[in-house]
Amino acid sequence: MNDSTSPFASRHAHLAEILEEHNLDALALNPGPTLTYLTGLHFHLMERPVIALFTREKPPMIVLPELETAKLTSLPFDLQTFTYGDDPATWPAVIAQTVQASGINGRKVGVEPTRMRLLEYRYLKHASPEARFLHADESLAQLRMRKEASEIAAMRKAVDIAQKALLATLPSIRAGVTEKQIAAELTVQLLRAGSEPELAFAPIVSGGPNSANPHASPSDRFLQPGDLLVIDWGAIYDGYVSDLTRTFSIGPVEEEFTQIGRIVAQANAAGRETAGPEIAAEEVDHAARAVIQHAGYGVYFFHRTGHGLGMEAHEPPYIRAGNTLPLLEGMTFTVEPGIYLPGRGGVRIEDNVVITAGGAECLSDLPRDLICLPA
Amino acid sequence: MNDSTSPFASRHAHLAEILEEHNLDALALNPGPTLTYLTGLHFHLMERPVIALFTREKPPMIVLPELETAKLTSLPFDLQTFTYGDDPATWPAVIAQTVQASGINGRKVGVEPTRMRLLEYRYLKHASPEARFLHADESLAQLRMRKEASEIAAMRKAVDIAQKALLATLPSIRAGVTEKQIAAELTVQLLRAGSEPELAFAPIVSGGPNSANPHASPSDRFLQPGDLLVIDWGAIYDGYVSDLTRTFSIGPVEEEFTQIGRIVAQANAAGRETAGPEIAAEEVDHAARAVIQHAGYGVYFFHRTGHGLGMEAHEPPYIRAGNTLPLLEGMTFTVEPGIYLPGRGGVRIEDNVVITAGGAECLSDLPRDLICLPA
Repeated sequence: MNDSTSPFASRHAHLAEILEEHNLDALALNPGPTLTYLTGLHFHLMERPVIALFTREKPPMIVLPELETAKLTSLPFDLQTFTYGDDPATWPAVIAQTVQASGINGRKVGVEPTRMRLLEYRYLKHASPEARFLHADESLAQLRMRKEASEIAAMRKAVDIAQKALLATLPSIRAGVTEKQIAAELTVQLLRAGSEPELAFAPIVSGGPNSANPHASPSDRFLQPGDLLVIDWGAIYDGYVSDLTRTFSIGPVEEEFTQIGRIVAQANAAGRETAGPEIAAEEVDHAARAVIQHAGYGVYFFHRTGHGLGMEAHEPPYIRAGNTLPLLEGMTFTVEPGIYLPGRGGVRIEDNVVITAGGAECLSDLPRDLICLPA
Repeated sequence: MNDSTSPFASRHAHLAEILEEHNLDALALNPGPTLTYLTGLHFHLMERPVIALFTREKPPMIVLPELETAKLTSLPFDLQTFTYGDDPATWPAVIAQTVQASGINGRKVGVEPTRMRLLEYRYLKHASPEARFLHADESLAQLRMRKEASEIAAMRKAVDIAQKALLATLPSIRAGVTEKQIAAELTVQLLRAGSEPELAFAPIVSGGPNSANPHASPSDRFLQPGDLLVIDWGAIYDGYVSDLTRTFSIGPVEEEFTQIGRIVAQANAAGRETAGPEIAAEEVDHAARAVIQHAGYGVYFFHRTGHGLGMEAHEPPYIRAGNTLPLLEGMTFTVEPGIYLPGRGGVRIEDNVVITAGGAECLSDLPRDLICLPA
């Protein structure tokens, strides 16, 4: 029943190699991007447990609510399925049956600490008291880090949708509108441009002093002449994410704002130009950071330069000091230096980059200088 | 620093009562609705750990990334804060310091199994090896189950937004459009009508045979004359969710579809009319189910009648057989019976109900019969 035109057979083989290399017998997954990568299945995780088990010997197995089984029709690979009904009292026995069939008891089972919930973990441990559950985040990072051509194509499309949506939103941005209004309009335009509705993250729209907070939530503050305006947004296409940032000025701004705009654009360029195969992730961070430090603003750039991007808005490789991981062809990540002047304003410029055989390609191409919008 | 106009002081007091009643010394939380309920704080949980600790003796504490601290300004209660930077190697020490300050080591600490991730749990256990972590889902259910007036007002608004959005979407629904197109337009209209952009769930739009799958994802199938069309959608306002379903016919449909439409509407009414204070949750399920069973379609109604609704799209109380929990004033939940004829089509009608002093109020009032849309 394995379909050679689907990507799953080769992904399952890759997983088997990773398990072997890290001396793991199996992988236990909660719904999330790794499960989607390996099966194409999506679940909205709420109160009902869902567990998939991948072993080195048997076809994968899944235990899930009866009313989710329609999702399993026409899967292009074998998946042994166990289902339960609405009464939670019946769940432990069904999960125990699944675990029994997998043979993981007494074996070494990898789990994803950022995804596995205590709910499912408790059931797993109870049903396989002799299994050893090992946190496999670092070994599993290899599974999805180097993107296939089809994945890069989806990311390219997600960048394209995000860029179109921003351009469609710009005419409605001027002094007197609120951050929340802009965020709502940008979200509408993301959907109009073709983004899937469940965004990986809601747009960050932060004006004036709020722009000095890199993780601000859109507020009811009205944009004012002289504000900096940071917009950090992205689309999702075919399950793949884009994540961009541009900074605007609302009418003319003070000279120092213009200056930090130039410095951040240079830092962004330095990061992108440094990226390439066999370059350590930390070198990209260093290149961007050095520009800002040399300009005397090092203390105002207090986050890493970027993060991996793919099915998740944050995933390996992390572009930060101390990460010696060599970048390799197919890795995709953000380059997003910033300068944040507390109580005054901030600038961040973020692009999405893919490592190629000979260097790095930037998927995003909107202008990077401070664009002046109507005051 | 406690502000008596904020809801948090009384919520913290309620939590302290629940901890005492269930013989717990503390509660350890991952970001999620319970943390938001107790603090007003929102975090998008990714690779960085965030843990809040509520004890019975001390002000609450939180450990979080440095770049999230701007969210903590002007909180209306004391919150002891610990922060870490980008290098994961520095995280364990900061988390250990937080745990040390809380004094939870050696104590009984409640956790939420559907929210707590292994990532944070590992740090907590490592930093407090003598603590006993106890799954507190059932005891914590009390915390948020009976809504305050302000919460019901937000849910009322979320229902209102959802109903307006559906009405604005109806003109674009006809034979020849796809489920995905309808879902995208409905999402746009939800935002236009005032929903927050991070929906609790993406609309389900399922036509023809797909409508027989209660958890279908919108597909590229074109609507056809004679189809049933199930739309299950909701808005989010001020952090509170609505969750409605209506079923339509695309032009005239076969007689049995019309008939199951009538039966489901009667089942929905029976469930709503049975709900009231001190009525067991299972009685609401029984009332709706009895209508469908008596009509001979019991086997085609294979899910529970409803679920609690509030900050989460699914939360207690669950409206299902076997749940003897007495409904109490302020509890809010869905009533959503359905009949699903495999391979042919389905009908579901879902309303949002709040228990009042004397009975139950239905927050939603869109017509419940099969509305005929252009074929």
